[in-house]
Amino acid sequence: MKNAVYFQSGGPTSVINSSFYGVIVACQEDERIDKLYGARYGLEGLLNKDLVLIDEPYQKYEELTTLSGAILGSARLLLPSSFEEEAYRKVLDCVKEYNIGYIFVNGGNDSMDTADKLNRYFKSINYDCLVVGIPKTIDNDLLNMDHAPGYGSCVKFITRTLMELSLDINAYKKGRVTIIETMGRDTGWLAASSSLANEFNLGPDLIYVPEVPFSKEKFYEDIKRIYKEKGRVIVVVAEALKDKDGNYVASDNNLDSFGHVQLGAISKLLADQVKKDLGINTRNVELSLVQRCASHIASSIDVKEAIEVGKHAVKFALEGKDGVVTIQRISSSPYKVEYVLGDLMKVANGIKYLPRNYINEEGNGVSKEFLDYARPFIDEDEIKITLGNKFIQKK
Amino acid sequence: MKNAVYFQSGGPTSVINSSFYGVIVACQEDERIDKLYGARYGLEGLLNKDLVLIDEPYQKYEELTTLSGAILGSARLLLPSSFEEEAYRKVLDCVKEYNIGYIFVNGGNDSMDTADKLNRYFKSINYDCLVVGIPKTIDNDLLNMDHAPGYGSCVKFITRTLMELSLDINAYKKGRVTIIETMGRDTGWLAASSSLANEFNLGPDLIYVPEVPFSKEKFYEDIKRIYKEKGRVIVVVAEALKDKDGNYVASDNNLDSFGHVQLGAISKLLADQVKKDLGINTRNVELSLVQRCASHIASSIDVKEAIEVGKHAVKFALEGKDGVVTIQRISSSPYKVEYVLGDLMKVANGIKYLPRNYINEEGNGVSKEFLDYARPFIDEDEIKITLGNKFIQKK
Repeated sequence: MKNAVYFQSGGPTSVINSSFYGVIVACQEDERIDKLYGARYGLEGLLNKDLVLIDEPYQKYEELTTLSGAILGSARLLLPSSFEEEAYRKVLDCVKEYNIGYIFVNGGNDSMDTADKLNRYFKSINYDCLVVGIPKTIDNDLLNMDHAPGYGSCVKFITRTLMELSLDINAYKKGRVTIIETMGRDTGWLAASSSLANEFNLGPDLIYVPEVPFSKEKFYEDIKRIYKEKGRVIVVVAEALKDKDGNYVASDNNLDSFGHVQLGAISKLLADQVKKDLGINTRNVELSLVQRCASHIASSIDVKEAIEVGKHAVKFALEGKDGVVTIQRISSSPYKVEYVLGDLMKVANGIKYLPRNYINEEGNGVSKEFLDYARPFIDEDEIKITLGNKFIQKK
Repeated sequence: MKNAVYFQSGGPTSVINSSFYGVIVACQEDERIDKLYGARYGLEGLLNKDLVLIDEPYQKYEELTTLSGAILGSARLLLPSSFEEEAYRKVLDCVKEYNIGYIFVNGGNDSMDTADKLNRYFKSINYDCLVVGIPKTIDNDLLNMDHAPGYGSCVKFITRTLMELSLDINAYKKGRVTIIETMGRDTGWLAASSSLANEFNLGPDLIYVPEVPFSKEKFYEDIKRIYKEKGRVIVVVAEALKDKDGNYVASDNNLDSFGHVQLGAISKLLADQVKKDLGINTRNVELSLVQRCASHIASSIDVKEAIEVGKHAVKFALEGKDGVVTIQRISSSPYKVEYVLGDLMKVANGIKYLPRNYINEEGNGVSKEFLDYARPFIDEDEIKITLGNKFIQKK
């Protein structure tokens, strides 16, 4: 009988620990897995034999489903391409010593690359150890799945926060241009989600996503038009806007440990420029780290699905299958999904952009198709506001 | 029989609309008040006769107790000192036309100045109209009261957010210096509240408040010591830190419409300086507008008290008394308060600083006394985290 190891990789989300909980439950419910270990600090845990035995009954770990962060510790560590490298020998040492037959890698696209390399390595040496990927990302940029756990909770936080910010911003008669910045390394999935606040009449006027090349001229035109009409403008921008030549609008040119460019504070930059060039008062709000760890307002669907992808990873592994668990949508209304094993290579390193039909024609907002896609995540009955700006709109 | 008017003034909070609800309930429950009006956009509503009749049964307005913002619209408008000025005549016109006998002013210290002037004006012309102030401020800097509605909800948001940020930040083995910025124009009440997260082992290492002159040398020493010990540092700073000469550490030298200096992004400034001077990676998080409008995580005590101060304002007015409703604490454990009518002049324009015994000896954190003071606001059972960093701390 073999043991299993689970590790977390890449940036934390509100629900990655829910997937950990799903793995714990499924491993304890199936007698074919003896012990479950958690590797501390992602792949480093395997390289350094830094494992924690998960030996209490799963009920004791239920609080994991309410916790943001990455409770085992995470890392942004890539495996080299050549299986001759030291790192693979170290992983093999650890796997042998702990009699590991199953490795569960919970991460984003870079981490699925790691999972894929490990799988191919074990096959290349004919060693009996299966690797199954468990997706997570707040950015929602993983290919070949409807969405990834982590995204839905951000959608809910961003939607409710936009509603609250709008109520606050609308309090004054003389308005400003407020520029609100979401995360999203390459894509506009998070920025776009702010549009759901408009279903409660408390959302942004304009949304700019990296999928549409950013033009300062068009941006200024949009702002001037709405400011003239309403006396205030609420703008949401993704951190990673690029101009028509593909250059980031705001970047400090440093690289993170995955080799990605670190993005600068685009909301501050644009707010300063609007004030200077258009002479309108501005304010900027960066939703920052807060948006990805706001587990107190986690989406109930997101938590449930995060647990399910963890459980399904164990199920597929016990069927002798490697790959990555993906969520596929059957219908939006009523919301229904299924869990399907996908190909790691098709997820690793790729980026899923917002499809063009999710963005409005002008490129400064979203379409009905996007709203239908994202609406299921927000627990509408819980966060809705019906009173809106009733009093200040009424004469 | 006279009518009443209520208006909102100054910056919105998560619970100012709860006070509005309290006023509505109390006015409808007492037959001595005929109609209740809401003045739109604060004092401007009285000046421009821009009033909304609040004519539905109070149950229809209950959603107000869940809404951030200032639903009637707010303004930052000061009254002149001389009662000969046009503004007073305009207010009198409005009051006469609408047969107003009671004015309820819901605001901070500047707004209590407005309430006081109106009161003295009506007395000076022997006109039968009473003004009662209803306090609100997230900054908690109003004198002669234990605390003001609005503060408690921020305390809860900041505490839970610090816990969530800590879980996120702790995910990586190699840490940084993370500098988190709270609001607080002149005082450290909000920054100090982040310390409650430490009761769940998920709080800041250092807290700097404006009540202690900021020394960059001491700040660097503190950071170097903790970084050496733990490999990461979580710092909370109030936006309004001042150096020993009384100059703001970060300010853009613009004035807002109350004549206050507008404060700059101190967390970004300090993060950049630490990176440059100490060579440690940094990150900054501004809790920004989000902290003052996060009504989805409003403190239950704060909401309840906000309703009560509204109700008490009506009660005191009907007893023929002017002044400001204040919350006075009877005990912290069990938490118990009473509502006492205070003197508007004693609240207007003054600032209540953190007392020295609420700050630790070194001036980089809080004392047990502060924790006992602020703990009642956080709904501990609702936001607690017990699992903490169990896995990464355990070997």
